Parts: sequence; C-alpha cells; structure tokens
Amino acid sequence: MTDWQKIVGGITAPRGYRAAGITAGLKPSGLPDLALILSDVEAIAAGVFTTSQVKAACVDYCRQHLRTKHSARAILCNAGQANAATGTQGWVDALESAMAVAQALNIPSESMLLASTGVIGQRIPMDKLKAGIPKLVAALSETGSDAAAGAIITTDLVTKSIALETTIGDRPVRIGGIAKGSGMIHPNMATMLAFVTCDAAVSPTLWQQMLSRAADRSFNSITVDGDTSTNDSLIALANGQSRTPAITEMGVEAEKLEAMLTAVCQHLAKAIARDGEGATCLIEVQVTGAHDELSARQIAKTIAGSSLVKSAIFGRDPNWGRIAAAAGRAGVPFEQANLQIKLGDFLMLENGQPLTFDRAAASAYLKQAAMGAYLEDDTVLISVSVGNGHSEGKAWGCDLSYDYVKINAEYTT
Amino acid sequence: MTDWQKIVGGITAPRGYRAAGITAGLKPSGLPDLALILSDVEAIAAGVFTTSQVKAACVDYCRQHLRTKHSARAILCNAGQANAATGTQGWVDALESAMAVAQALNIPSESMLLASTGVIGQRIPMDKLKAGIPKLVAALSETGSDAAAGAIITTDLVTKSIALETTIGDRPVRIGGIAKGSGMIHPNMATMLAFVTCDAAVSPTLWQQMLSRAADRSFNSITVDGDTSTNDSLIALANGQSRTPAITEMGVEAEKLEAMLTAVCQHLAKAIARDGEGATCLIEVQVTGAHDELSARQIAKTIAGSSLVKSAIFGRDPNWGRIAAAAGRAGVPFEQANLQIKLGDFLMLENGQPLTFDRAAASAYLKQAAMGAYLEDDTVLISVSVGNGHSEGKAWGCDLSYDYVKINAEYTT
Repeated sequence: MTDWQKIVGGITAPRGYRAAGITAGLKPSGLPDLALILSDVEAIAAGVFTTSQVKAACVDYCRQHLRTKHSARAILCNAGQANAATGTQGWVDALESAMAVAQALNIPSESMLLASTGVIGQRIPMDKLKAGIPKLVAALSETGSDAAAGAIITTDLVTKSIALETTIGDRPVRIGGIAKGSGMIHPNMATMLAFVTCDAAVSPTLWQQMLSRAADRSFNSITVDGDTSTNDSLIALANGQSRTPAITEMGVEAEKLEAMLTAVCQHLAKAIARDGEGATCLIEVQVTGAHDELSARQIAKTIAGSSLVKSAIFGRDPNWGRIAAAAGRAGVPFEQANLQIKLGDFLMLENGQPLTFDRAAASAYLKQAAMGAYLEDDTVLISVSVGNGHSEGKAWGCDLSYDYVKINAEYTT
Repeated sequence: MTDWQKIVGGITAPRGYRAAGITAGLKPSGLPDLALILSDVEAIAAGVFTTSQVKAACVDYCRQHLRTKHSARAILCNAGQANAATGTQGWVDALESAMAVAQALNIPSESMLLASTGVIGQRIPMDKLKAGIPKLVAALSETGSDAAAGAIITTDLVTKSIALETTIGDRPVRIGGIAKGSGMIHPNMATMLAFVTCDAAVSPTLWQQMLSRAADRSFNSITVDGDTSTNDSLIALANGQSRTPAITEMGVEAEKLEAMLTAVCQHLAKAIARDGEGATCLIEVQVTGAHDELSARQIAKTIAGSSLVKSAIFGRDPNWGRIAAAAGRAGVPFEQANLQIKLGDFLMLENGQPLTFDRAAASAYLKQAAMGAYLEDDTVLISVSVGNGHSEGKAWGCDLSYDYVKINAEYTT
C-alpha cells in the first residue's frame, strides 16, 4: 500500500491551501508565534483532541464547532500561551481570536478553527495577537508551510513537516502535514499539535473515521509518558481541490487515501518522538502474536513508555529483563511461556526462556543508533512476540538521557 | 482510630516471631542478602502480589500456596537476583530453596513462603544460598528484625521498619513490618517487598480482606511510575500469640486491627516513596470531593506520579498548571469549573479560575520541605478538590531530581 511518493511543500503541497507564520510578540523569545492555514474553499474538517478533563479553550471551541459543522476554511494557532485553565476569560479570548481573524479574511467566524500551545494558566496577550493579524493575513502564501511549521513550535529543536502524493482516478491527490511537540515530558508545554491538509474530496463522516484510525496508529502510539496535554489537537482538512471523484465510502480509493493519511501521521508522530527532550535515538517497538491490534499496541506503548527501558537504551545496555517487565505490566493477558524478545537482530528470550547472546555486539547496535540522531537511521528496534495471535501493533518513543531531566528540572514558571 | 502507639522491635515486636538476616554471598557487594522470618506456630497468612503477566518464580510459588493453604510458618527472602524470567529452572530453584530451609527448620516445606528481589533474568546462585542456610537459621532471634530489614534491600538508602501496639480485649496486640523499595523507577530492581507480622488471632478470609484494603490505601497508592515489578510482594502473618480473642468478622475489634494494619502499611509505603532514587522530599496528594474513594485515589496517584509535577517540585516551582493537567488526564470525569488546587496553604485555583498568590512564599514552602529530607517533616502537601462528592483518597510520591536519572542511566547489567 505504499504507492505514494514524497513531495515538497508540506501543508501547502495540496491544491488550494495557503499558510503563514509570523512573530506577533507572544513568545518572550521573539521567535515566530502565530500561524494561519487557509483553504481557498470551505473544506471538510475532522479533528482528534485531548481526552483530558482539563481542556484548553481552543479545544472546547473546536470540539463544539465540529459537533455541529463538519467543515472549515482556516486554522489559527498561537504559541506561547496554552489558554488552558484560564476560566471564562480564556473562552472569551478564544471567541475573539476567531472573530478577529475571520473578519480580516472576510469569512464567517463559523469557518475558523483554533489551536494554542504554551504555558498552562496563561492568557493570550490579545492586544498583540490582534495587532499581528493584518501582517499574518498578508503573509499567507502557497509556499507558506515552513513559516507556519516554525510558528507553532515551542521547545521543539526542529520543525516537523511532510507531504505525500498518490493518484486517485488518474489524478494526483496530496496530503501535507505539520506538527509540533517534543514527545516526552515537558516544561509546561507538553502539547502535541498537528495540522493536515488534503485536496481529495471525501465525505465528512469517512474523513473523521480515517483520521481517528490514523491517529490511533500514529500520534496515539507515541509515548509522552502519559502526559496528555490540555491542548493536544490534530486537525485535518480535505478541500476537494484535486478535482478527483468524491470518496464517500470505504473501498480501494478510500483505503489508498487512508493509508497515505496514516503515513503522513506516522511520519509526524515519529518526528515528535525523535525530537523528545534530550533524546539520542528513536525507539520503535513492534508487538506481534497478539489477539487484537489494540492489545498489541497497548503492550508496545507500555514498553516504549517505560522509563526503565528508555534509560537502558540511553545507557546502551541490552537489558531485555526491563522489556519483559514492561510487557508484563501492560494490562494485557498473555502466557509468559510464549514471550519472545528481540533487540535489533539479537534474540534474547524465546518461549519465556533466556538465551545467551553477544552482549558486546548488542550494545554496539544501540551505540550505532545514537550516532544517527536526527537522521532517519537512528532507530532502535524492539520486537516482542506474545503468542500465536494474528494481530500486531507498533509504538514509538525515545531514550531517556541526562539532558531530559536537566531541561525539566531547571525550567521554572 | 489512632488509639495505638509506636513501639520498637519491627517484625519481631509481635509475640512469637524470630527473624534473621545474613550475608550469603548472593550480592556482588558482599552486603547482607538473605533474610528469614519465622513464627513459633503456624500463622494465618495473607498476601498481595504483582499484577504483572511476567511473574517471578517466588510470586507464582506464594500465589499457588495461598490459594490452597492460608497459613505459613516462615518467609525466606533473597536479595540480588529476582528469579524472574528464568524459565523452568527458576521454578525448580524456588522449590529447592523452600525445601532446603524447611528441612533446616524441621518444618513442612508447605509452611514456607518465598520472596526475591534483584536483577530480572538472573538465577539465584543455589550453592551459595544452600550453604548460607545453617548460618541463617542459627541467627534467628527475637531481636532480629533489623538484620532481616537490612538483608532484603537492594538500592535502598535506608531500611524501612515499624511496629505499633494497641489493645484488644484488654490485652496488647502488635503489628510489625519491614519493607524494601525505592519507590521510583529503578535499575532492574523495581521490586517492592513488605513483610508484616501480627500476633492477633484472626480468620484467614478476614485477614486477607484487611490486607488487600490496607494495600490499596498504602503500597498501591505510592507512585512507582507505573513500574509494577515482576516480584512485588506483600505478605502478612497473624499467629494468635497475643492470646486475644479470635477476630472472625468485621466489628469494633476488627476495625481497630485493620486501622493499625493500614497504618503499618502506610508508614512503610511512605518510607519507600521517601527513599525514591534521588528524592529530596515526600509528596502527599490529597484529593477530596470525588464520588468514590477509587476515583479520588486515581486522581491522587496520577498527580503524584506525574513527571511534570515531580520535576516542578524539585525545581521548587509552585507550578499549579502541571497539577491541573495531571488531574485532568487521570481518567476520572469531573467538572473543570469545580477544580480547586492548594499547595501547602497556598490556594492557587478555585472554581476553575486561577488566583493570584505569593509565588515567593510558595517556593519557600517547597524549599523548606527539601531541607527535611529523610526526616518525617519533609512532606510537600498537594490538596485538590474536584467537586462536591463525599469521597477522598491519598497518594504519595517523591520529587524528580538530577540524581534519579544519573542512577538509572549509569546502571548497566
């Protein structure tokens, strides 16, 4: 199902989208902090949001919007203030932001979606945001993806962006995406945001279903140490500007589109895990032999999220006992006698019995992954089989280094 | 219900118990590594064990024992090797350990219980263990609690011990306990072990029920970052040597005994959290206003276990936003508009609206707690109310410091 190709252009690669990112002065650092994504026409909109009981105003706004209206024209995102736990005033700020941008774009405010990331409990400086809107709208461009990607990040070391192209009915269809997040525990800014654009024509219900499944197989399978943020948001637009036939039910074309959407989401999710604070490598955990995909993913996530496993990988220590322990506590029943564990190509446990293996070579395998940090060959592969079931699942994380605690401990509000 | 007093003597404070701890050479360090607890008569035995799918041989052994036989004479515990993920040979080693000690004590091997802690995947050096048994049995003493407490620890900085006394039917009844564990993520030795002795006469079913409830309110309410070990065990004996009337159903006497049992377990659990690797203070989280105790405890545990909250406390940063975020992701529904957060005496959020507070004074409160490290006044109190429910729950954890990662990252198998 990988009949697509990588293209340039990020979220402005699909037809009929413009984007912009500017400095409005919301971040004390003076770095870009306000982003806007605009579709030329009203686009089908789907979203997946934080499951936290404490939600940012923008999350409440988007959820309310998407319950009644399954389309949108534009997404505004500010970085610096989370606008979460800001009470009634935070809600008013969200509404005013949407109205101000809609007015400048000359579109109904009901066509606006919102996202925020930054310090919890802090309001957005509304005067600065409003003052920045004319500049933001003027900066909208068909090559504006990178500017937008740069204006949504906080503690990220790199921007995250991707675009893929396939054909549907002999015509090109594109999906682009940008994201922010550093994948691990975070100084007050644990937020993961991702925005996806697509130029296919697809029905609202199907688009939301595809996005929810893709999110489970990507963003919901990276480890953030359980630190679901108040602001986590994934928003996907599909504007039909590819002029391809409308996709309204599952079938060959729909599966092709969903596979590409999943690939975009997985690329961005892995980029977030790879950018985890202090991380030196990406950890990919593959679990096979489970009774269902959810169980497999649950075990994979527990291993990828285990601080014991993460610190062992940083220490270049092929400590399979920690992997076994993490698998065991994932809450998924399996027979210990069926457990198999591999680190890279090194088989360490089979049928629940420990094997002898070349410890120095296994450690060297871990060392080599760290050398590839921030490249695509920095991956440590953990393969676990838990039985004879036919389902599998993956999860991604990163190692746990000195720098990670340094960053988190030294941060103060 | 605090009508008991602290007494000396640990697990040998209750009548009819002896204990010992010796160096058998199982630990490379040469520190004590083999402990034995013996009741003069067959004692009612109850246990709570790891819920992991990957269980140590000793855990399988004890669970199997307690399913059919609700009493025991002795508990053998080795430190150094977890005897987990050791396959069939590990099971044989467990059985042989029990038989060898039973023979030396001249009791049936069906009266033995077992516990292990140490590196996962490593077998116990059986020759050394067997060679140590005569010395271990010879060392049994009515003042042997401290020796036993010292022989069950691994990375712990301090031993953990307590004894309380109350009266039942005008006669003294005592409960003693020892424990090991450093409460946070751990270099291959995440195991929490606790052994409790009691001289009351109590029915097996009631004793198990009391122990399970006490475990939920103590050991299951401290944060180990979700790192349930393969070996976690809490074993409690009640030998009736107080000569007090047998307690066979709930009532005033039973409640008194259970309250004292809970206090013993809570003392040991807090001692484990306080001894968390690199910890500088104990964090106590009190959640009120919930609909049931389980929900309250779930929120409390999520806050106490949040790396964001823990690193903020270490940074002496009164960062209430992280507390709100952790409460929100605990998986317990509540109205954000009802949320109230206090740090010590500082009210920071009320009715979901942020309040202004004296930030310097709040930071000073956190600093002062660290000064008390390893004393009993080292507690940072976080109070959260989530609504108008009548239930409350507590959880305990510790802060997240540089040293914690240093210890975990530098450890190699």
